[in-house]
Amino acid sequence: MGDDTGGGFRNEREMTIEWGQCDPAGIVFNPRYFEFFDWSTALLLEAATGMRKAAMTAHHGIVGTPVVETRAVFHAPTRFGDRVRIVSAVGTVKRSSFGLRHRLFRGERLCVEGEETRVWAGRHPDDPERLASVAIPADVVAALSGTR
Amino acid sequence: MGDDTGGGFRNEREMTIEWGQCDPAGIVFNPRYFEFFDWSTALLLEAATGMRKAAMTAHHGIVGTPVVETRAVFHAPTRFGDRVRIVSAVGTVKRSSFGLRHRLFRGERLCVEGEETRVWAGRHPDDPERLASVAIPADVVAALSGTR
Amino acid sequence: MGDDTGGGFRNEREMTIEWGQCDPAGIVFNPRYFEFFDWSTALLLEAATGMRKAAMTAHHGIVGTPVVETRAVFHAPTRFGDRVRIVSAVGTVKRSSFGLRHRLFRGERLCVEGEETRVWAGRHPDDPERLASVAIPADVVAALSGTR
Amino acid sequence: MGDDTGGGFRNEREMTIEWGQCDPAGIVFNPRYFEFFDWSTALLLEAATGMRKAAMTAHHGIVGTPVVETRAVFHAPTRFGDRVRIVSAVGTVKRSSFGLRHRLFRGERLCVEGEETRVWAGRHPDDPERLASVAIPADVVAALSGTR
Repeated sequence: MGDDTGGGFRNEREMTIEWGQCDPAGIVFNPRYFEFFDWSTALLLEAATGMRKAAMTAHHGIVGTPVVETRAVFHAPTRFGDRVRIVSAVGTVKRSSFGLRHRLFRGERLCVEGEETRVWAGRHPDDPERLASVAIPADVVAALSGTR
Repeated sequence: MGDDTGGGFRNEREMTIEWGQCDPAGIVFNPRYFEFFDWSTALLLEAATGMRKAAMTAHHGIVGTPVVETRAVFHAPTRFGDRVRIVSAVGTVKRSSFGLRHRLFRGERLCVEGEETRVWAGRHPDDPERLASVAIPADVVAALSGTR
Repeated sequence: MGDDTGGGFRNEREMTIEWGQCDPAGIVFNPRYFEFFDWSTALLLEAATGMRKAAMTAHHGIVGTPVVETRAVFHAPTRFGDRVRIVSAVGTVKRSSFGLRHRLFRGERLCVEGEETRVWAGRHPDDPERLASVAIPADVVAALSGTR
Repeated sequence: MGDDTGGGFRNEREMTIEWGQCDPAGIVFNPRYFEFFDWSTALLLEAATGMRKAAMTAHHGIVGTPVVETRAVFHAPTRFGDRVRIVSAVGTVKRSSFGLRHRLFRGERLCVEGEETRVWAGRHPDDPERLASVAIPADVVAALSGTR
């Protein structure tokens, strides 16, 4: 994968793989990794901004930070009962979008890498059903960039 | 299980069990059946009322029809690739709640039975964060009861 | 719900509700609670027997402990970001099956109660595709009953 | 995204977005799209080879066709009740891996594009816990390439 770790804010968490997250091959069903990474992003944003997701969206008047592009590379499977660690880091922060990179480890073994691009999204001014990207506030840019 | 089929509105659908719905034992992970039944209920309500869920909640000014109690009995496992049929029927319809029964078959074999009680729920008048049950409109009662 | 806490082995865990576990009403999609309870049971069995699920099934020559019946009552919704506590306890332990009760709390508020009956299941002697209940070993009975 | 449709075997299916597949923003939770694409791949392989997944893995002595890399671009959200169409096509077929591309449409609107690379995987000869890629049989290559 690319190497866009960009020196941004970092966060990590540990979790245990659950039985119900695995498929008949006995390994994690691959869409589950995107669920793991989505929640890792929520925790990173909370740690970076000091606000829970609900409070952050309300405070900044946005709907959320939807993913517009994502990618994952699967190096090794993980199984229920495995204790894994997900290291997440903000990459490039642009005007209204930002990149994130997730790496999932079992012990020292890198098992899955993920990358995603998210937009800072509000309601579209002409159509509340649609989303529209808006400029990321300066303090959030600083928090994500790890320069605050 | 009980025998509350109550002569209410009936609906059925067919579906194929997917790989990602099965666990390392090779059989459907049991919480998935509640997902199947939830969607069967949505389809039944749509068939009974002639309105899609989004239109129905908007039309009647409710938030939804949350489950307040549910139960399932698992008679036989199902596996990915299995073609199954879910037969759903409304049971007792009360002032602000109604019962449903779901039976999942593989061929003639009854594999899973489910029962649920749902409430017709709006926003609580004193606290928009909370839900409050409200009376089911007469035309919906008639539709659910199969007497329309 | 019933009151079958039966004095059996108890275990509890804390977790945070994730965004992806909630539905468009902003609350946990009810089948997710059965996922939570399934994993709570796995953790309880691990704590009671001192063995991880994979080791336990291998050690005792069983396929698993599938749910044959389950039930839940939903008292109050929970939302993403909520910190919840699940208290699980073994109820009645029979020859080849056992009961469990789960209670999910947000603070002191009891939000969801679940009950389940599981069987100690091996391969059917005449048909490896089918499961068959087998007697629970005495040491497991003692561990589950909390009398070891 | 890239343009690797490669002239390979094509398959498509229609589905309706379910309530439980959507998040508190009211739109499909993005990991669900990878679930949709996984099942679309299973259906494409079944259509291409004329064998169900279970029969195909047994017939060819493989464990499965795990994803080693995947990517998606989200152009527009979809919501519960939306009727969508997923068009899937095999791209490049190599010695022991093959590419697939999925495009999800709501009406004529392209909402999500996905790409994945899968390997034809058996048990590793030295360690049954590990997977190892093996050469795709010639008849499967022909079926995937759409040249049979």
